[in-house]
Amino acid sequence: MTEEWLLDRSSTIPLFQQICDRIVEKIRNGEWPVGTKIPTQRELARRFGVNRSTIVYALDELTADGLIQSRVGHGTVVVNNTWNVIASSRSHDWGRYVAAGAHQPNHQWIQIINKAEEDKAILRLGTGEPSPDLLPAHTMLHSLQSRGDVLSLSYSEPRGSLRLREALSRYLLSKGIKAAPSSILIVSGALQALQLISLGLLREGSTILTESPSYLNSIHVVQSTGVRPCGMPMDKEGLIAGRIGPMKRQTDAAMLYTIPTFHNPTGCLMSASRREELMRVCMHERLPVVEDDVYGDLWLDASPPAPLKSLDREGLVLYIGSMSKSLGPGLRLGWVVAPEPVIDRLSDIKMQTDYGTSALSQYAVAEWLETGLYDKHLAGLREELRRRRNHMSTLLDRYMQSYAEWSLPQGGFYIWLRILLPLSVRKLFELALKEGILLHPGSVYDPGLGEPYLRLSYAYASFEGMEHGISRLAALIFQLGGKQ
Amino acid sequence: MTEEWLLDRSSTIPLFQQICDRIVEKIRNGEWPVGTKIPTQRELARRFGVNRSTIVYALDELTADGLIQSRVGHGTVVVNNTWNVIASSRSHDWGRYVAAGAHQPNHQWIQIINKAEEDKAILRLGTGEPSPDLLPAHTMLHSLQSRGDVLSLSYSEPRGSLRLREALSRYLLSKGIKAAPSSILIVSGALQALQLISLGLLREGSTILTESPSYLNSIHVVQSTGVRPCGMPMDKEGLIAGRIGPMKRQTDAAMLYTIPTFHNPTGCLMSASRREELMRVCMHERLPVVEDDVYGDLWLDASPPAPLKSLDREGLVLYIGSMSKSLGPGLRLGWVVAPEPVIDRLSDIKMQTDYGTSALSQYAVAEWLETGLYDKHLAGLREELRRRRNHMSTLLDRYMQSYAEWSLPQGGFYIWLRILLPLSVRKLFELALKEGILLHPGSVYDPGLGEPYLRLSYAYASFEGMEHGISRLAALIFQLGGKQ
Repeated sequence: MTEEWLLDRSSTIPLFQQICDRIVEKIRNGEWPVGTKIPTQRELARRFGVNRSTIVYALDELTADGLIQSRVGHGTVVVNNTWNVIASSRSHDWGRYVAAGAHQPNHQWIQIINKAEEDKAILRLGTGEPSPDLLPAHTMLHSLQSRGDVLSLSYSEPRGSLRLREALSRYLLSKGIKAAPSSILIVSGALQALQLISLGLLREGSTILTESPSYLNSIHVVQSTGVRPCGMPMDKEGLIAGRIGPMKRQTDAAMLYTIPTFHNPTGCLMSASRREELMRVCMHERLPVVEDDVYGDLWLDASPPAPLKSLDREGLVLYIGSMSKSLGPGLRLGWVVAPEPVIDRLSDIKMQTDYGTSALSQYAVAEWLETGLYDKHLAGLREELRRRRNHMSTLLDRYMQSYAEWSLPQGGFYIWLRILLPLSVRKLFELALKEGILLHPGSVYDPGLGEPYLRLSYAYASFEGMEHGISRLAALIFQLGGKQ
Repeated sequence: MTEEWLLDRSSTIPLFQQICDRIVEKIRNGEWPVGTKIPTQRELARRFGVNRSTIVYALDELTADGLIQSRVGHGTVVVNNTWNVIASSRSHDWGRYVAAGAHQPNHQWIQIINKAEEDKAILRLGTGEPSPDLLPAHTMLHSLQSRGDVLSLSYSEPRGSLRLREALSRYLLSKGIKAAPSSILIVSGALQALQLISLGLLREGSTILTESPSYLNSIHVVQSTGVRPCGMPMDKEGLIAGRIGPMKRQTDAAMLYTIPTFHNPTGCLMSASRREELMRVCMHERLPVVEDDVYGDLWLDASPPAPLKSLDREGLVLYIGSMSKSLGPGLRLGWVVAPEPVIDRLSDIKMQTDYGTSALSQYAVAEWLETGLYDKHLAGLREELRRRRNHMSTLLDRYMQSYAEWSLPQGGFYIWLRILLPLSVRKLFELALKEGILLHPGSVYDPGLGEPYLRLSYAYASFEGMEHGISRLAALIFQLGGKQ
């Protein structure tokens, strides 16, 4: 429980009165202006750590004072504040503004998922980030000490710290990508790279081809700029390259977005020959490619084929990398490799958006790349992810054999689970959430999915958590699937 | 000179040949795809650190090879690459894409200024950031050591680190602002706050009232979302509040953006009575206010009147603060205080944009606020800025008396210089830049300015730099102004 909701249990003021005072203060400060729907009784009880009856009593008081009102179907709403008791319509109603902005709200599922993830006790079975245990927070702080004089707290140049871009240039060479520092732009994570590409290079109403299912459908940053993703079929080797040409011509697509290495959400690894075929097709079609390689360092069995960018001789591929999946999402640090005219355009927009990426994060990542700390960390991380993947594999074999199908990924975080019993994934999601288990429904990644799918991740939950989660999941699937 | 352009002067390969090889490599890698305009001869000579004649020789070779071509009025363009010598039209032309994106390019002046600032030798007389000497880079790294176990490298919750929001809540209270952690959103600098507000709360085609001149005109983030700034008159006490009502009704303005404390670019401080009047008017007009208070901590003579937000009883003010001007722009850390429904909307968009602000920056700022390091730093910074302001004041008195008018600010960075001789600020800018002096023309902040203005800053240049810069500026003004 946070400071904000902490009551003084030793006080002579009754708890319900303290709660009233706290809510009145929020209304007075304008934190809950007139028109605000306040949290539910259940939620308030949770926040204040009291029984629901205490909340009911407090809300009755405030209703009697004319500050709040229960409206059927609308919950409880602030209708007045103490400065304007007679002119309630005067206080500012933000609802109209909140509805007006051009930017789309996040995917409804994603909003629920983001919210649920705030609860530390929730068991995350499909989340897109590594467990905090896997991240080197302590070593990170320690490593920052070593060379105090190199840090700059000023604005960095538009493309990002030169020291970091030089370190990345060497790191990329180990993947077969030749990129001078001037062809690299530092961004605040891969998501920002996608936003810059959408804002800077795509016309409203453009189509972008992508795998079906695709991570791209779970985010709204591309859609918010008026760009439409269009799904393409995959097989075990990845995107079916032969379908790109006809689809491009049919939709007049402006770009292809792909995650060839440890695809999100399917875990699929595109084969070397498919990569070559895809590049041939895209060069022939003059179709630029956005290659999202944020999972590339997380191979578990063998090093994956070289990125598409290493096959690119025409400046056709915009390559995106990030430290979020390997070193820490909290760093908010990624990079784009692209032809210089593209980098110029994207860095100009980045300067208009946030004036660059945190100097501390840039400093830390340069340090980790230069000193070999990153490679050392990766070796340990792969070992740990391998154990987790194998554990989840054992659990799926044990509990899911009759209910689902899946393939074991060779890297990354995800297992794409196809449920064999006919059931509503929404119901499954809701039932699991009631038990404190958070799932990622397949439809988040492909709204047109005809069958029930889940994205599972072995990167977050503990061994015990996975066992509990998978066994309960199996039970819920049986319960729901048996009913129909 | 960076690695990228370093030639091997001990090699038996002639320099021009090394330059050819380097350029061919850039073309091969797709860093300079077909259609790219390569840097000018002068620029290449600077980058490689050779005479221009060596560059001419190298470019002649590449032209003979059919890789580049000089086009009248277009500079030198890549027309071919070694993989496609016979089908030059095959390589990807990004020009069409770069022109297509919805986002506007940065203000032309600002692009030139951003570029010029990459040159470390340039004398910055009007820049919007504090000198690196004023920023505590070393202490910063040292301070991060103290409590290794509190850092989280995971994604932070949508509103930002709770620890930081609690620290900010206490810090804001010292300014008279009551804001619970749930009413605070951590952003990657004030500029991002403006982007989120534009995307999340304003309809395309909306009008936003602001001071004339205003910082808002120098950035394109608001304009890129289709929102139009509309200038309002100021006097010595700030925005003329009585004009807001008629202007709001005339333009159907959706918001007011103001920097009441140490205004950018005029340095003006809004009086306490004007603040009250402004809030009365905005409440009466139901006109939401964006209060940009990024200079508030940088008072030099006396603590400024309390922010507008402290007078806000109706949740009408969206308050923006930042560490960029005081602790370090490189941290990319700011905050928005607003009613909860607004914070919900903005944090949802923020999650879609960059998944939060750097955990390292959030950790550092929380640490500095909690331990008192920030207050201690501020005391020293104010002392230093006071000396710099007084020095610039002396210099202006000495050199500018007959050429310009100005008022001395009581805080912040800026002096708004009105030049009394009729001259072209563009010419002045260009002449100064040739001498290595970078100016900020007034028209950047108000395109409709009828008279020549400059924004000066005493926060960046050294004492000697200021003296050289101001004396040369006076000479150039005399030279240009005398001619007309």
